[in-house]
This record gives sequence, structure tokens and C-alpha cells, in this order.
Amino acid sequence: MSFERTQGRAADALRPVQLQRRYTRHAEGSVLVSFGHTRVLCTASVEERVPPHKRGSGEGWVTAEYGMLPRATHTRGDREAARGKQSGRTQEIQRLIGRSLRCVVDLAALGERTITLDCDVLQADGGTRTAAITGAWVALHDAVTGLLASGRVARSPLRDAVAAVSVGIVDGTPLLDLEYVEDAACDTDMNVVMTGAGGFVEVQGTAEGAAFSRAEMDRLLALADAGIRRLVEAQRAALAQPLPDA
Amino acid sequence: MSFERTQGRAADALRPVQLQRRYTRHAEGSVLVSFGHTRVLCTASVEERVPPHKRGSGEGWVTAEYGMLPRATHTRGDREAARGKQSGRTQEIQRLIGRSLRCVVDLAALGERTITLDCDVLQADGGTRTAAITGAWVALHDAVTGLLASGRVARSPLRDAVAAVSVGIVDGTPLLDLEYVEDAACDTDMNVVMTGAGGFVEVQGTAEGAAFSRAEMDRLLALADAGIRRLVEAQRAALAQPLPDA
Amino acid sequence: MSFERTQGRAADALRPVQLQRRYTRHAEGSVLVSFGHTRVLCTASVEERVPPHKRGSGEGWVTAEYGMLPRATHTRGDREAARGKQSGRTQEIQRLIGRSLRCVVDLAALGERTITLDCDVLQADGGTRTAAITGAWVALHDAVTGLLASGRVARSPLRDAVAAVSVGIVDGTPLLDLEYVEDAACDTDMNVVMTGAGGFVEVQGTAEGAAFSRAEMDRLLALADAGIRRLVEAQRAALAQPLPDA
Amino acid sequence: MSFERTQGRAADALRPVQLQRRYTRHAEGSVLVSFGHTRVLCTASVEERVPPHKRGSGEGWVTAEYGMLPRATHTRGDREAARGKQSGRTQEIQRLIGRSLRCVVDLAALGERTITLDCDVLQADGGTRTAAITGAWVALHDAVTGLLASGRVARSPLRDAVAAVSVGIVDGTPLLDLEYVEDAACDTDMNVVMTGAGGFVEVQGTAEGAAFSRAEMDRLLALADAGIRRLVEAQRAALAQPLPDA
Amino acid sequence: MSFERTQGRAADALRPVQLQRRYTRHAEGSVLVSFGHTRVLCTASVEERVPPHKRGSGEGWVTAEYGMLPRATHTRGDREAARGKQSGRTQEIQRLIGRSLRCVVDLAALGERTITLDCDVLQADGGTRTAAITGAWVALHDAVTGLLASGRVARSPLRDAVAAVSVGIVDGTPLLDLEYVEDAACDTDMNVVMTGAGGFVEVQGTAEGAAFSRAEMDRLLALADAGIRRLVEAQRAALAQPLPDA
Amino acid sequence: MSFERTQGRAADALRPVQLQRRYTRHAEGSVLVSFGHTRVLCTASVEERVPPHKRGSGEGWVTAEYGMLPRATHTRGDREAARGKQSGRTQEIQRLIGRSLRCVVDLAALGERTITLDCDVLQADGGTRTAAITGAWVALHDAVTGLLASGRVARSPLRDAVAAVSVGIVDGTPLLDLEYVEDAACDTDMNVVMTGAGGFVEVQGTAEGAAFSRAEMDRLLALADAGIRRLVEAQRAALAQPLPDA
Repeated sequence: MSFERTQGRAADALRPVQLQRRYTRHAEGSVLVSFGHTRVLCTASVEERVPPHKRGSGEGWVTAEYGMLPRATHTRGDREAARGKQSGRTQEIQRLIGRSLRCVVDLAALGERTITLDCDVLQADGGTRTAAITGAWVALHDAVTGLLASGRVARSPLRDAVAAVSVGIVDGTPLLDLEYVEDAACDTDMNVVMTGAGGFVEVQGTAEGAAFSRAEMDRLLALADAGIRRLVEAQRAALAQPLPDA
Repeated sequence: MSFERTQGRAADALRPVQLQRRYTRHAEGSVLVSFGHTRVLCTASVEERVPPHKRGSGEGWVTAEYGMLPRATHTRGDREAARGKQSGRTQEIQRLIGRSLRCVVDLAALGERTITLDCDVLQADGGTRTAAITGAWVALHDAVTGLLASGRVARSPLRDAVAAVSVGIVDGTPLLDLEYVEDAACDTDMNVVMTGAGGFVEVQGTAEGAAFSRAEMDRLLALADAGIRRLVEAQRAALAQPLPDA
Repeated sequence: MSFERTQGRAADALRPVQLQRRYTRHAEGSVLVSFGHTRVLCTASVEERVPPHKRGSGEGWVTAEYGMLPRATHTRGDREAARGKQSGRTQEIQRLIGRSLRCVVDLAALGERTITLDCDVLQADGGTRTAAITGAWVALHDAVTGLLASGRVARSPLRDAVAAVSVGIVDGTPLLDLEYVEDAACDTDMNVVMTGAGGFVEVQGTAEGAAFSRAEMDRLLALADAGIRRLVEAQRAALAQPLPDA
Repeated sequence: MSFERTQGRAADALRPVQLQRRYTRHAEGSVLVSFGHTRVLCTASVEERVPPHKRGSGEGWVTAEYGMLPRATHTRGDREAARGKQSGRTQEIQRLIGRSLRCVVDLAALGERTITLDCDVLQADGGTRTAAITGAWVALHDAVTGLLASGRVARSPLRDAVAAVSVGIVDGTPLLDLEYVEDAACDTDMNVVMTGAGGFVEVQGTAEGAAFSRAEMDRLLALADAGIRRLVEAQRAALAQPLPDA
Repeated sequence: MSFERTQGRAADALRPVQLQRRYTRHAEGSVLVSFGHTRVLCTASVEERVPPHKRGSGEGWVTAEYGMLPRATHTRGDREAARGKQSGRTQEIQRLIGRSLRCVVDLAALGERTITLDCDVLQADGGTRTAAITGAWVALHDAVTGLLASGRVARSPLRDAVAAVSVGIVDGTPLLDLEYVEDAACDTDMNVVMTGAGGFVEVQGTAEGAAFSRAEMDRLLALADAGIRRLVEAQRAALAQPLPDA
Repeated sequence: MSFERTQGRAADALRPVQLQRRYTRHAEGSVLVSFGHTRVLCTASVEERVPPHKRGSGEGWVTAEYGMLPRATHTRGDREAARGKQSGRTQEIQRLIGRSLRCVVDLAALGERTITLDCDVLQADGGTRTAAITGAWVALHDAVTGLLASGRVARSPLRDAVAAVSVGIVDGTPLLDLEYVEDAACDTDMNVVMTGAGGFVEVQGTAEGAAFSRAEMDRLLALADAGIRRLVEAQRAALAQPLPDA
């Protein structure tokens, strides 16, 4: 017998996905992404400067920062600003988001400017990093649209879409888009980041208990592939709408 | 001629106030407060422990932490968690919020538990600290209602409401509830915190340019007093509604 | 019956005030200020550079730092340098001192240089921040006199004097210039900073227990006003003396 | 034409592997592992205490810390102890090493004690994290042998071996065990951790430039699988030797 | 021709020494020590607890902390509390002071309590660490006298006096008790700490330019020996006076 | 009866000394130095830049950093990078190493470049700082040889050799080159740094229990002098060998 998901969700079903553009008014791009109860505010900020390793290169930079509000979770966690440092987990996630987005950006076309994606989790229920990547790409797209409109870039530096989802094996059943209770219970957990064209950007699989087999990995990759196709459709549908008022 | 406010707002008018309860689902109280474009997420977290100075006292503790998302503002600010420390401004504000709330709480009636109010600014347009106090009190009230419902406290530790507003003199005109451009332009800036019964909890007045007179101070205090009465009404109206689903 | 003060001090009396100029020899201004047993060493240091936000502006900067020796107090406190960070209280106080002094300085007349006021508490008995402001202004004055004498500034950037005092209500009696035991016992505590001309620079009132009324606030402001007039006289008397040898 | 490797190494060949046991004398396990010019000192330290989340659980803990000597690399890097924090990369690696080892340890059989694997890179030439995992497992094995010999554990908590290797695609050719120049040139980079029984523990694949296809991933996983089998043989061969004098 | 000292001081002469007891009122011992223009406030704080490595040992602990006010020096230095860490020089000095005092204390006779000597430099003109040791011992003596008077210790834990002085070779001339300009000009610099009985506690000699010979070292040690005898006399003379009012 | 040393070592005998050049391949100089079981990896890194206080001076800089691997010692110590700061002991040692090496370097002959000596203790058994100085000088020599060979410096900036040893009194017997158990047991402990020509660079003597006499000091200095002569011979012998392959 397989694992029973919340509200009878199928093993290969995503949670309801929402991509609410212009959620805040100051940022060049601002998207509230929801994967079920997981909600992440992703803002894109354009700054006319680059980090030292890019100065004079003619190329720009795209980077990300990640944070979790202290009570985004079931029990309150420490505020990282008060503790005085970011956890290893936080740094790992923000490095992943940054790499994932840079993979679809032509930094030369961006020119010597930086776009920073701030991904702040308002409410957590599993999959915060995959929701963050998926939402941040939409925020990045809105920021790029602004750069094109103002003539600051001549052609879009975005080569493709990028989105992400988690997959895992719970009680022997491969599941798509794990929520928190599934994540806590799973034997194997994999985060997959793919482009709109279906190429892999990142694959991070971890055995939580026993090691996993090649066959299990193949099933998880197939689930992720199908899920990401639907996420990319959701990104495109969101961008097809007119930008709402802030 | 006096200063022209956005959308023809009167000098003694508040911006539109919203208090959206149960904005997130995990916290014992969770309120999104809006003062115009300023939006602060206030969560109340109940924990069954107290800081060292209260251990064994039979009394509880109420404290606050404050943060600003990096792109809550017109230009992106540093993430305090990444910089590794909270600014003096952040610490000053979170100490103010904590003191203001404790002034209306009977810590003995709360028992040996801590309620932490996390006030995180999603969008800033002036008055983030006063919005935070006003919203945090509603979140605190919802958390206390939960403690009463579960029988963990026998009577409400809340002695009164507390709310706050900023006032200032811009081009010689005393104004209520300053938005960002007014705050940046003002000569004198005052944050006032008052109880539902009309007592003063905190008065923090600062001359930005020239010193201010006693007469100016009196006019500002009167403006604040009237504004806070309306904020307390808004708090009560919000609490009179049934708690929405998360 | 009202509260009995140490040595029969009247409710509206200051403690003995001393302003010992040139207490140390290296600084451009150096004043040991005493409010009773509270003793704060205030030095003014002139540096020919400005912080980034003033570069190229033609204006100077005045800033303050505050510290408390570990055994300035009844029981030893942590050394902030050893703990690796300044407390919220320390930051709040040094920001207050800096703002208060800048309010009476014409930064354009100062030119592109910085004057830093270091206020270090050698012995604490209540009112360290108000003593610091009062003494720091005298140190600042001595530093400015040096700049005028050497021709580095053409006219004094000091527009007025500034001094500060605390007031509070203890057992129902409004008291001027609280010493430590009074501060610990008071219901309402207010720090007031005023110019020589009698304008308000900062008013920071805090209800420690119950909220305070408008009438109480008025009585406290009147007490502070009278006290600050006497402090400004003491500043002027100290400056009227020849500068002692170091 | 495919990429030419140093000293004519075949695309599917490991660099020379050495596992020098008891490299230092104080640690319960101490292994200098070499993958070609990459050299990592791995020590296992047994302590009779556990972190808070394991106290009273009857279970032990296995954790890892990673560091790189400042001049392990071609150009000198900052010393993390002097900078005052570990980089995101360092934290990511030490979390990976810890998870990988815990996957083959029965924490209940270990009992309430902690084994810490310190992996310090003396010389870096690509693959430091995979060498560290491979060497740390041997150090862990020696520490466990000591616990068995002294009767502190009744049966070995080690369920299997674990080893790791990097694979990547350089100029279209999939290569095993990348050295530094290959790592810098590669399009896709994957670190794979597997058990002695051939199960996957971690798979971390990253597209450096273009995204990678499922077919490329399959070829990389096959290369890694074969390489890890040989590494596990090398671990077993090293453990079959008598423990040298320190 | 030899080096000309300020005010014609002889090569083997100390600067004027002052030991002003009860300089502040809260500490169990409080001494303002002056070696010429160098002035250090040394307070001794008694606390009824010991650090972890002494718990349950029946022994006490004596430790020291050292700080320099930012404008104790000719040009303003950073405030260590604001920078967030103590410099290597500060740590070196406070470790030296602590070791020097412990050398003359019977920790078992002290019982399980800690005496902390805070040495804060109000004005620096060379020799701050030697003045600190010399003054701190007097503050420690006053604290011990209080413990004896209150019966908390049965016999004095002080086995002897301890004092310190710097010596150095400037332009070929060995000099006693270097002031700042001499210290900056010297070839060899030595800090010597000795007991009242004439035993060595610490000898720290450093060649600033060329290495120094055994003969030079012998001359410096002889100078230091004679100087410390006079400092110990000054300590005894200060303690022979009745304790002044604070 | 005097103290019995390990393996019958004479009181005035060094432990076996090894200086293994080119221990690692990337650094301009790299020496593994052993004093018995104490092993320190010393690398010299040449960088074409100088710290701010040397910019534009035409002079170079030589500095050192010191670290101890967590399990270099009998029981595991904290990793300083993880704790977020270097201990006072670490800073004291690295400052000593830097000063000792600079004493024999002509910084003008070095030109505007920096040589950093990283001294990392792989295994500790007493005398890590003296081994570090002795080994670092050889690494520095190899780096300088490279600069001469490439024509970047015209003449050697090394004016002499420098080496160091510890001496101490254990149970009344003066001993040369203390190992850990001797160091822990000794009454007086002295680290001596001398040049090849026999001049003193640093003398740091510390009484651990009772103060020490001038006669004891003289015996310790004589022991150290003889020991350092032999260490300088060992340095010269090591440098007389051809540089091995890495």
C-alpha cells in the first residue's frame, strides 16, 4: 500500500501553484510564489554595479539571497540576523538559486549590472528552495522586461526559463513536490532544476536512510521532468497576463 | 501655503489601515498590517519557557524582533543576516516594540511562557515601527485568545490595547502618520505609543533640523492622540471579525 | 508623602555638576563631566576626512560613540569588546548623543572633517547619557575653538549650546536628574535634550509600569526645562575659565 | 577529438589513490588520503558526549568538519579562522561529508558518543570533497576498530563502506575523477557518493555552462559507479594491512 | 652622545609614579595608576563564581581584561567594541597581566571566587601594560583586604607584591621606563615583571631592529630590577595610607 | 635526582629535527618541520602587493599566520574557523613568528611584495611555535631563492638565519626543547629566538609557579644558545640539499 497524500493528491501531482506578480511595489520584479502552503516572496533588484570579479569584464552578474522568517515554520526558529550568521543550510540554498538562474542568463547581454534575487520564505511547508527558484525566474523576467523597455539592454539576456521541483520516495512510493510531512518521512529526497528546453541544471539527490538504487533514481528523474514541464507552463501563463498594479 | 499630501490626504488623516488576521498559518497569531503602502507581517509565537531573568519568577515575558526585507525599500539594503549583525536602528525599533507591548501585559497572568512578536517589513513607506506596534498587538491578542481557549492561562494577561503613530512637522504643518517622502522632508519627527485608555507609553520626538518648541510639541501630541484613538478602533473592529481560515 | 532623595535633595534640584576641561592631553577636546557620582569622560577628536555619505559635499560630520567601563556599575558587566558586539542600549545611546550634537552644528561651516565624541562612563549612577551629551558639547566647543585658532574653520559651526537631563516620576513625585536608585524605582522615565535657546532637540519618554498622562508629561517637561537652563549655565561657566594645563 | 589528460590518463581512469593510515598519532583514526596531487588529512575523534538533539536517545552522532590550508591551492586563499567565518562552500562540503558517513552508520550501535571527522586539505588539485569522504571512512573504520577492541561498542556500527568520486564532461568527453584544470574547464560537474554495495548516497550534478541531457547524466553515473567500486577496493586493501606505528 | 630624555630625566630614572586608590566607588578595588602621562584605571571585581576549569576544585581564579579608550592616544584608534573584536595586541596584554598577578596569588587560599582586574587606559604615553600590572596589584590588594575584613577568606591569598617596568636601548643607551617617543625609537624593548622578593615573573624582550647581545640584555635586566624595587616601594607606600573616600 | 626524559634524552639535547623541503607543491616555499613528534607545515606565499602601511614605501612585508588542526592534540580542540575567531594564544604566536622573521629581513631589498608564512600544526607535542619559526625560515629562504632566480629581487633580503627553541626548568633541572609532558610540568618556561650570528631576537620567559631567579635565567639562556646553534646548522644542512620534487 502506498502513502496517502494530503487531500488525496496523486503521487505525480504538483500542489496548487500560484505566481503573483508585482506583489510589492519597489522592486524591479516581485513575485509571491506558492507551492501549496509554501509561500516565498521573490524580488529582483537591479543595481548598476558588479562584484569585483566582474569589473571591467563587460559582463553582469546574477545572484541570490535566501531567508526564512522566524515563524515561517511550525515552531519558531532563530532569526539569523540576531544570531549574527547565516546557517550552512541557508548558504547552500542561496548558492543553488544563484547558480540555477545564472545558467539561463547571458551575462554579456546583461551588461555590467547586477540583478539580486531575494527569496524570503513567508510560510514553509516543504519545497521552499524549489518554489524560490521557480518564482525568482519570473521576478527576474519582469526585471529584464523593464531593462528592455528602458533601453538599458538591447536584447534579453534570458536564454530560457528555469524551474525546480522536489521529488522523493516515501514508504516505497516516488512522490512529486513533497510537502513538509512527506519530506520529513522520506527515504530519498531529490531536488531537480531544469530549463524550459528540458535540460538539467542541478540534480541533488540525498539518501536519508538507506542508499537508493539506480532504478529509483530513474523514476524520480522522470517524475521531476514531468513536474517541471508543468511549472514552466505556469511561469509562462503568469507572464502572459498584464502586470498588475502594485 | 501648507504641504500637499499624496492623494489630497488631510493633515490629520491616517492612511488606509488594514489588519489582516491569520495571514500565515503556523503562528499562534499572525497579522499583516498596512498603513497605506507600508506593510508589516507581525507573528506572535508562544513558547513554554522564559529568559534567564524570569526563571522561577512565575512571570512570563513578551519580546519583539524586527526586520526589513532587503527590497522592502526603494533601493535594496543589505540583508542583516548576511552582514552578520543587526543595525542600531533595528535594535532600537525592536526594543521599542517590546517595551510598548509589555506595558499592557500582566506578566504574572501570562505565567512562565514567552510570546515573541516578529515584525517583518514586506514593504516600507514610512511608519514601519508604528505599524508594527499596532499590528503586533492584534497578533498578540490572537495568541492570548488561543491560550485562554486551551486553558493554559486562566484570565487574559492583556490589560489594554496599545497602538502607535508617527507625527511630524513638514514645511511648518503638523501632519499625522507620515509616509516616506514626508518623513524625509520633516523638521520634527515624533513617534507616539498610547494605550486604549489614552495613556502615553512612549513619546520619542526628534528635531531633524531646527529644535522644536513646546507649542509645536503640543500640537503634535494632540494629532497623535486623535490618530491613535482611530487605530485602536481599527484594532477592535478587526478582532470583532471571526478568525479567517489560513 | 513623597519620595526621600539622597542627602535631602529637592525634587527639582540637580546633583552637583562638574565639567573638568582638558582632563586628558591628546584629544582636541577632553571633558570629565560629573552629575553627582556619575562620571563620563568625553573626548572630541578632529579628523580630516568624512564618512562616504558626506564625501564631496563640502560638509563635515559629527558623530558619537559610547561605552561603559565594565566596573563602572555596582556589579561588573561584560566588556563589549570581549563579547564582540555593542548592546542595543549602547547603540541607542550613541545614536542619541550624535543626533543631539548635530542639531546645533552647521555642518557646512565645519567643512569636510569629522569630529567624533567618545563618551566613556568611568562611574555610573544614573543619567549617563544626559551627562554625556552635556559634557560632550563642552568638549566639542574646545575642539572648535582649536579649529578657529588654527584658521581651519573661518567661523564657528556651533549655532547654540545643547544639554540634557533625565526626569521621572517616583512614587507619584516628579523628580529632576534621577540617580540610579531613583531610575530603578520610577514609573515614568524621560530624557530631554534642549538647546541653549530653550528649543527641544529630543524628548524620549517611557512608561516603565503604568502609562502616563498628559498632565504628568507636562510637569516633567517643565522640570526638565528648568534643569537644562542651569546645565547650560554650567557649560558657559566652565568655558569662561582659561583652559587648564593637561 | 577528445580532451588530453595529464600523463595520458584514460577518460575512465582514477588518479593514483593512496590511503596512509595512522598519519598522526593522537587521533583514534588518522588517514592521509591522496587522489593524485590532492591530499587530505582525515582524523576521527571519539568523544563520550552527543549534541543536544541526541541526548538521552541512546544513539550517537557522526559529524564532519572541513578546512583548506591557506596555501593548499595555487594562489593563497584567506585563512577562514582569521576572516572569522567559514565560507558557504566550506559549510556545504562539511555537511555533505557528514551526511555521507552517517548513511552507513548505525547510530544506535554506536551508543551515546560522537565521532568527528576533521578533513583538512594539505594540497588541492580537484576532488577534495570526494577524497575527504573516501579517506574519512577509513579513519572512521580505524576509530570503530578501537571502540570494538576496548569493548566500548559491542558490534560494529558500520553497515557498509562509503566512497566518492567526481565526474564531469570536458569538451564533450565524460571524464572520471577530475583534477583541477579539468574541473575548471568542465561544462558539467557531478559528485557521486556510493556505498560498498553500490547504492547511491548523494548525487550532486551541476551544469556549469549549458544544461546537460539525461543521456549525459547516464554516462556520468556509469563512470562514477565504476570508479567508486575501485575506490572501495582501495579502502579494503588499506584496511587489510596492519596498522603502522605512528 | 646619549639620548636626551624629556625634562632631563636620567637614563635609570622612573617617571613620576602615582597610585590613587578608590578612584571609583563601586569596585572592590579601584586604582588610577600614573607613570608620567600614562594613566590606567585598574579595578578589581570580586565575583562568587569560577570559570568552568576551576569548578569544584576549591580554588579561585584571577584574570584580567585590558582596553584603551579610543582617544587615549595621539590619534584616535578604533573602538574595539564597535569593530567587534579585540586586537591581538590587546589579548596579548591582558593575558600577560593575568599571568603576572596569578603568579603571586595562592588560588586555594582565595577559595572558589574570581577576581577580575579591568585595566582601562585613559591616557597613553608608553608603558601601559607595565603601569597596568603595577596598579592592578594594588587594586587586587584592596579587594583582598575587603575579603579578609568580611571574613570571606581566612588568610590573605597574596604571597608577594608584583610590579613591572619597560626598559629599552635607544641610540645605544639603555633606558628605564620608556615613554612613547622612546618606545617608538628604540632598538630593543623589554618588559620585565618581578615580585617584591626580586624574582622574575615575566621577561619579554624583543629586538625591534638589529638583534641584541647577551651583554645588552644583562644591562637591561639590571636597570629593570632597580626600577621595580622602587615601584614596589611605591605600592607599599600607597597601601600604607588610609583608604580615601570615594 | 633530576627529571627522567623520554627515551633517556639528555637535559641539553634537542629532539630529532627534520626539515622536509617542498612538502607541498603550490607554495613558493613549503617545509614540514619536525621537532620529535611535533610537526608543523610551513608554507611561504609570495604576493605582489603590500598592506596599506607599506604602500608606496618601496618596502615589502613579511607576516605569519598560525593554526592548529583540531586533532593535532591529545584531545580534540575547537576549530577556530568554526568558532569564528582566533584565540589569544593563536594571535600571540603568529605575531611572534612574524616579528622573528622580519628581524632578519631587509624589507627594502624585498621590494613592494608580501611573503606570508602559514604555519599549520599537523601534530603537537610541545614547542610548536619554536618549530614553526625554525621551519618557516627555511620556507622563506626557498621563496627568496625563487625571487632571486626569476630576477624579481636583485639581492637576497635575508640578512641572517633565525631559529627558536624552548627551555624550561622541570623539578629543578633546566631542560632544552621541552616536549608536551615536560611543558605541562615545568616551573619556568622560556622561548628564545636567535639569529645565526648568535644575537637575541626574542626572549619570552614565564614563571609558571614560583618566580625564577637571575641564576636560573642565565642557565636557561645558555642552554637555548647552544640548542639554537644546532638548529641553525640543521637549517643550513637542509638548504645544502637540492630541492626535491614535489
